[in-house]
Amino acid sequence: MRTREKLREDFSEWYNSILETAEIVDVRYPVKGLYVWGFWGFQIRRFVTDILRELHDSRGHKETLFPLLIPEKEFMKEAEHIKGFEDQVYWVTRGGNDELDVKLVLRPTSETSMYPMFSLWVRSHADLPMKVYQIVSVFRYETKHTRPLIRVREITTFKEAHTVHSSREDAERQVKEAIEIYSEFYRRLGIPCLFLRRPEWDKFPGAEYTIGVDTIFPDGKVLQIGTIHNLGQNFSKTFEIKFETPSGNREYAYQTCYGISERCIASLIGIHGDDRGLLLPPEVAPVQVIIVPIPYKDFGEEEIRRVCSNIKRELSAEGIRAEIDDRDLRPGWKFYYWESRGVPLRIEIGPRDVKEGKVTIFRRDLMKRESVDAENYLKRVRDLLNQEIIENMRKEAEENFISMIRRCSSLEGIKKCVDEDKKVARVNWCGEDTCGLEINECSQGQLLGYSVNEKESGECIVCGVATEKVAYVGRTY
Amino acid sequence: MRTREKLREDFSEWYNSILETAEIVDVRYPVKGLYVWGFWGFQIRRFVTDILRELHDSRGHKETLFPLLIPEKEFMKEAEHIKGFEDQVYWVTRGGNDELDVKLVLRPTSETSMYPMFSLWVRSHADLPMKVYQIVSVFRYETKHTRPLIRVREITTFKEAHTVHSSREDAERQVKEAIEIYSEFYRRLGIPCLFLRRPEWDKFPGAEYTIGVDTIFPDGKVLQIGTIHNLGQNFSKTFEIKFETPSGNREYAYQTCYGISERCIASLIGIHGDDRGLLLPPEVAPVQVIIVPIPYKDFGEEEIRRVCSNIKRELSAEGIRAEIDDRDLRPGWKFYYWESRGVPLRIEIGPRDVKEGKVTIFRRDLMKRESVDAENYLKRVRDLLNQEIIENMRKEAEENFISMIRRCSSLEGIKKCVDEDKKVARVNWCGEDTCGLEINECSQGQLLGYSVNEKESGECIVCGVATEKVAYVGRTY
Repeated sequence: MRTREKLREDFSEWYNSILETAEIVDVRYPVKGLYVWGFWGFQIRRFVTDILRELHDSRGHKETLFPLLIPEKEFMKEAEHIKGFEDQVYWVTRGGNDELDVKLVLRPTSETSMYPMFSLWVRSHADLPMKVYQIVSVFRYETKHTRPLIRVREITTFKEAHTVHSSREDAERQVKEAIEIYSEFYRRLGIPCLFLRRPEWDKFPGAEYTIGVDTIFPDGKVLQIGTIHNLGQNFSKTFEIKFETPSGNREYAYQTCYGISERCIASLIGIHGDDRGLLLPPEVAPVQVIIVPIPYKDFGEEEIRRVCSNIKRELSAEGIRAEIDDRDLRPGWKFYYWESRGVPLRIEIGPRDVKEGKVTIFRRDLMKRESVDAENYLKRVRDLLNQEIIENMRKEAEENFISMIRRCSSLEGIKKCVDEDKKVARVNWCGEDTCGLEINECSQGQLLGYSVNEKESGECIVCGVATEKVAYVGRTY
Repeated sequence: MRTREKLREDFSEWYNSILETAEIVDVRYPVKGLYVWGFWGFQIRRFVTDILRELHDSRGHKETLFPLLIPEKEFMKEAEHIKGFEDQVYWVTRGGNDELDVKLVLRPTSETSMYPMFSLWVRSHADLPMKVYQIVSVFRYETKHTRPLIRVREITTFKEAHTVHSSREDAERQVKEAIEIYSEFYRRLGIPCLFLRRPEWDKFPGAEYTIGVDTIFPDGKVLQIGTIHNLGQNFSKTFEIKFETPSGNREYAYQTCYGISERCIASLIGIHGDDRGLLLPPEVAPVQVIIVPIPYKDFGEEEIRRVCSNIKRELSAEGIRAEIDDRDLRPGWKFYYWESRGVPLRIEIGPRDVKEGKVTIFRRDLMKRESVDAENYLKRVRDLLNQEIIENMRKEAEENFISMIRRCSSLEGIKKCVDEDKKVARVNWCGEDTCGLEINECSQGQLLGYSVNEKESGECIVCGVATEKVAYVGRTY
């Protein structure tokens, strides 16, 4: 049985200890808010970014890399955008012993680095839609409390996509594609999430509107794990991104952008973890099957070792990431070691398995052993890794997620739900700012916005007008 | 026939035009020395970094990611190191509207970012050797003339490996492994190179010695495309990297580091390119086979399209990166387009091919067509992509390389070879600084150092002492 006592009691302590035990990040780098990726964490990051690449490539996004340094002039062009970022950018003012003539900003996000180039690249309607992405470091001078993978000064894993379109409709279609990509991404990771159109006051600086992607952590707090912005023509007007229409006119283009950071890895930890440590979806587990020999004095070590090697060879031939742990340590210690790192399957081979032609398979997601006939083990492992484990993880995460949400029908109800019971409130909201502000201020939580894919008939809990919009209120990270 | 007239006449002009035509980088970013990766260039970069990862992973290097920002205090610790870099680092002095208490350096290389952490990670001889690497951006405030992929202010693709050892011997063994990795890397890319132990005055700041990896461009100039440093105990003493020996003493560790940048991609362009443009080794070509339908009015377009689709499907099933160019453009235009991008093979399917059951294969490396029976084409393509093309590219590059080197036996000979004939001089040098300085100053070239893997008996061309050391002198980028 999986237990989640420690995790629920003190999430922060649990989270920090997992980061260390499972070698996700090392927090001892001598600058606040900057962290070093641990070897295990970095491998998870590789598999996660591989999925992001696959999802973007297959939908016609081209990967590229723009410079990290943005000249002051470009950065200062879009008024709203600057207002949103000027307090949190790092400035490079010196090169060697020279004061720089042109001060440079470390990109906090890449609109102002990319869009001057887009104005050169986009010529005709035939060039559109253009979809570009990169996976890079971005920097925010955070003055708030920092936390590894969640609130950092160097976001080391920022996947940002930027698209250009010839019409408002096409940009809207792109927003839908972005929702589709992010839904699929989090579905594969087994992370339940909400797609919420943020209130006006909470949108991205320079956007027409913003859709936030939110999940809920075991402590009832909401973590934003992605954002999608429809930029309209705001930036294209500032950066002169124009295209020639079929009839020969020159029009300003429409743009969108959407991003996901290493918070997606924080969500893997928080959503699937338990008192033992990590639990990783097989697709992103650096080791998918750990093989542990269980030798006994009275039984040939050689024979057990041979069986383990065969299993490793057979699994590897199937493209399964399998390792043998043949260190000179007690089996129990090895069990704990790999369980805390979230390896989804363990195969134990002891004298009885060898004698009886069996293979013992331990499922990390159920913390349970099963014994299968040696001739069938490969199929069993394949089924578990390809389907059963992630489905079970998804189901469990979904249940936890739903248990954290409560339908509320009054402002008092929200306050009790969010402040006392530490849950997320689900309410009908008409979508108007005036009502939104009341909802936003009635508890310690925030109005996160209304769902773009759920509808439920009801009355706005502030003004009482009939609406199908479903909004969420919760405390946030 | 491949021709290399334009390339030899004005290499710089040729190089810049290729970068543009083949969409390697866009040079129009509004800050000097910073460039944007083009879509084609970025894909090449992906395959090249995949090889680097494979070579490092398979030899026990662990990939990770350290922060880009280094606090002034750590950066200033190693005296030699600072001297080498202080003129060329970017300083972050402001965050938002605050002057930073602790100034931060954008890493010019990561010794001072990594080694404070290594001093925490390394505990016992059992932790060693430790091999770490990352592929990141590093920054140099270049005041010299900048050039895309060669001399840049943001090196966007710096693979840097850092290793820690329990003995001088083990660090020496690691230097050999680094040579092996880099040899294999450039062998796979078909780039001939020299491994030269740099003269004292040219070593990495803080290293005991440096081995440079050099190739020679068609204009006779030498490009350093990698470096390997034995750091001895210099940095471990500065950063307190100590380990416990089996007998319980605490000793300073021995270290090495070695790096390769996007210059490896510049070398692909310069070494294999010709008047048509790029020529890519199949392993790193984003498209390995471009299929061009050649329709005629009097023959069913449908039939040709069907054959092309079959071929694409068959190639893809073999893991070959194949695309059909079915744009509404003249075949000749398409030929030029893909040739200039360096795609190694083209398959042309016209009416005659279909009627006679043939497939026309065009080899970019020979600029030559061959017609093969349809039932054999797959094997032929496989052989070409796996072996024949890269072997031919390697042979041709090797011949060009050798033709650029001349054996010299006097300082006057070096001067003529380097300054007038624009070649690289090969000489015997005893390895002593005093003789080295004379060799270094006798021409417009530099003494690049002596080879670590070639030997040839002779006399030092300055002092006349018998030596087996073979050194090279050349103009550099």
